[in-house]
Amino acid sequence: MAVGLVKPDHLLPVPGVELAAVAAGIKKSATKNDLVLFQFSEDTRVAAVFTRNQFCAAPVTLCKQHLAITDPRYLVINSGNANAGTGQQGMQDAQQVCRWVAQVASVTPEAVLPFSTGVIGEYLPLDRFEAAIPSLAEALSEDHWLEAARGIMTTDTIEKGVSRRFDVEGIPVTITGIAKGSGMIRPDMATMLAFVATDAVIAKDALQQMITDAVNLSFNAITVDGDTSTNDACVLAATGKAGNTEITLATDRYTVFATELVALFQELAQSIIRDGEGATRFITIQVDGADTLEQARQVAYTIAHSPLVKTACFAGDPNWGRILAAVGRAGVPLDMAALKIYLDDVCIVEDGGRASDYTEAAGDAVMKKPEFTIRVDLSQGNQSAAIWTSDLSYDYVKINAEYRS
Amino acid sequence: MAVGLVKPDHLLPVPGVELAAVAAGIKKSATKNDLVLFQFSEDTRVAAVFTRNQFCAAPVTLCKQHLAITDPRYLVINSGNANAGTGQQGMQDAQQVCRWVAQVASVTPEAVLPFSTGVIGEYLPLDRFEAAIPSLAEALSEDHWLEAARGIMTTDTIEKGVSRRFDVEGIPVTITGIAKGSGMIRPDMATMLAFVATDAVIAKDALQQMITDAVNLSFNAITVDGDTSTNDACVLAATGKAGNTEITLATDRYTVFATELVALFQELAQSIIRDGEGATRFITIQVDGADTLEQARQVAYTIAHSPLVKTACFAGDPNWGRILAAVGRAGVPLDMAALKIYLDDVCIVEDGGRASDYTEAAGDAVMKKPEFTIRVDLSQGNQSAAIWTSDLSYDYVKINAEYRS
Repeated sequence: MAVGLVKPDHLLPVPGVELAAVAAGIKKSATKNDLVLFQFSEDTRVAAVFTRNQFCAAPVTLCKQHLAITDPRYLVINSGNANAGTGQQGMQDAQQVCRWVAQVASVTPEAVLPFSTGVIGEYLPLDRFEAAIPSLAEALSEDHWLEAARGIMTTDTIEKGVSRRFDVEGIPVTITGIAKGSGMIRPDMATMLAFVATDAVIAKDALQQMITDAVNLSFNAITVDGDTSTNDACVLAATGKAGNTEITLATDRYTVFATELVALFQELAQSIIRDGEGATRFITIQVDGADTLEQARQVAYTIAHSPLVKTACFAGDPNWGRILAAVGRAGVPLDMAALKIYLDDVCIVEDGGRASDYTEAAGDAVMKKPEFTIRVDLSQGNQSAAIWTSDLSYDYVKINAEYRS
Repeated sequence: MAVGLVKPDHLLPVPGVELAAVAAGIKKSATKNDLVLFQFSEDTRVAAVFTRNQFCAAPVTLCKQHLAITDPRYLVINSGNANAGTGQQGMQDAQQVCRWVAQVASVTPEAVLPFSTGVIGEYLPLDRFEAAIPSLAEALSEDHWLEAARGIMTTDTIEKGVSRRFDVEGIPVTITGIAKGSGMIRPDMATMLAFVATDAVIAKDALQQMITDAVNLSFNAITVDGDTSTNDACVLAATGKAGNTEITLATDRYTVFATELVALFQELAQSIIRDGEGATRFITIQVDGADTLEQARQVAYTIAHSPLVKTACFAGDPNWGRILAAVGRAGVPLDMAALKIYLDDVCIVEDGGRASDYTEAAGDAVMKKPEFTIRVDLSQGNQSAAIWTSDLSYDYVKINAEYRS
């Protein structure tokens, strides 16, 4: 069902990063990978952002505690169970998982970050973790990025991963990232789960600035259903093995690297939408001419979250009145006479009503495409925002009505 | 498909109000009623509230202009076409419809209020109005409330109407109201369309206060899909034929009447949710213990608009983690340890996680019911809010993907 998304055939290894994935039996299927381990070389610098859902999961809380103490050497990620809504027991379980990894890796538990994704409200099957962690540690390899991408999937239908290789002042560096997510997607500071690593040498404050900026332009600009997950997390690790001059804030090196990073983050984030639950279309919502970025995003999200717009997109029906109605209720001051709405290049609304040269055939041709842009020009200021979303199909309902059965 | 809703078998006439409904050919079906006329006796007092969607339809704009000039004697309502997103042409069309009614009724055009509901972005078929209005005026009768209820329907599957008869200081008075609406329902100051009339004698300022309060507790407390319509309108007319002592602000008479009015408005509003597009369940979201009413409503609407909660309701699956996640992202400060969530009387969340005595069987038993309550006790203050919503089913997608085809 994924829209314009194919399985990556190869992801570039990142010197200093080894990975492993096994089927530990946490998912109902005994043969699907559901437990993943990342190992970072010593002195790797790590930055991360997490969900702002106040009901954040136990592993999210523990990650923040551990990051305040030390840079992590290991990430342990399970799919099939979110360890969210599990109270004090959930916290103890996450700590136990970290201790087991720390034991086989001979590090302190604080050097391990735990991540979980899957159903909310069930306790982790700890025995499966205890049994699988030793063999997981033995399977570590630089070449297991694709296996890891598969191991973090839940309702995803396809692995999501992107690599980029480019030069920083003549020194080649690599970034590889994987992500998962398909439903409960309206990230607020980070998406469901994304893990990105590079061998570039990057200063810690520069790394944190980069991930924050890149997340705002990527994972914080996508929505499937407006539901912010309890487990969103995005991690960026820099092993420093590339040997480039350290990338620091306000340098040309920073700009070169950050530009590539944003592009990679956007591709990963868009891959989540392309594989959105039940998605049959990939829709860009572009809002221009706003007075503030906040207002541009508000209009864009109101369109993107409208079930009526989303079902019209599913039908491929240019029922543009629904777009107009969504803009009108977005809570942003509007100049009705100046505002314009487009489907790709086709103007549908101007002068407060249907554009004079609009034809149903022209609108139909755009909305029947698997990918198109809904663009609103508020004609008020010079701020713009783009977000990406999917449609609302029978399969979205089916997937979410049957998720636990 | 409507949940717990049957067609009203009789609606009480209101002295001073006559109605008519005909099939004018505005809807695609030539046999369905789609044009309705209300006639109020002289000296009837009228109050109304309208959508806050900034892209409000031409008839809404014209209603406000006419109400500023005089109390209306006639309401003319068409279904099948919303006359929204139609710019200056739409305004001229609405004015023309009022002129035709004014002509046959021998009143000024300002004494006529126009209402439209249906597809957005198409011009009114004026010739159908011109042809039908004379026969419409001839068909006026006190006994046509049910026909009118049918005539304003669009995707509604059942007529919505409620009557109440009670005494005000020993004088019997009647209230009868009809409403329509099934999708694009998240009213903001009024619902899709509701017309309520009484024969009570009510002062003008008391009438306006009553409709405002009653709408806040009824039509402004329901949501199907979070989409606020361009055409929402609610009208309350008092003909004064009952002969009671005038109902004025801050009297016992006011309280007696307003209490009955709120009950009638709530029943009408709930009937819209019971007949929500594709609805298979009727869900009350009750939020207690909030610091402010605004925060209580914000939590309630976040739950009610979550596609994941709504699909879980459709499935009858107590996947309560989705409710917890919605509460957590509502943007309201929360005390996780104190907060409690219930399905009817079954406590599902306490102490930041699953309630200790919760069982899947208990949750399942509630959510398999056609009607149940999701209750959140924030345990912070003493403000409460209740809203009503429906689930998200295959049929919601089907209805909205196929609406124009």
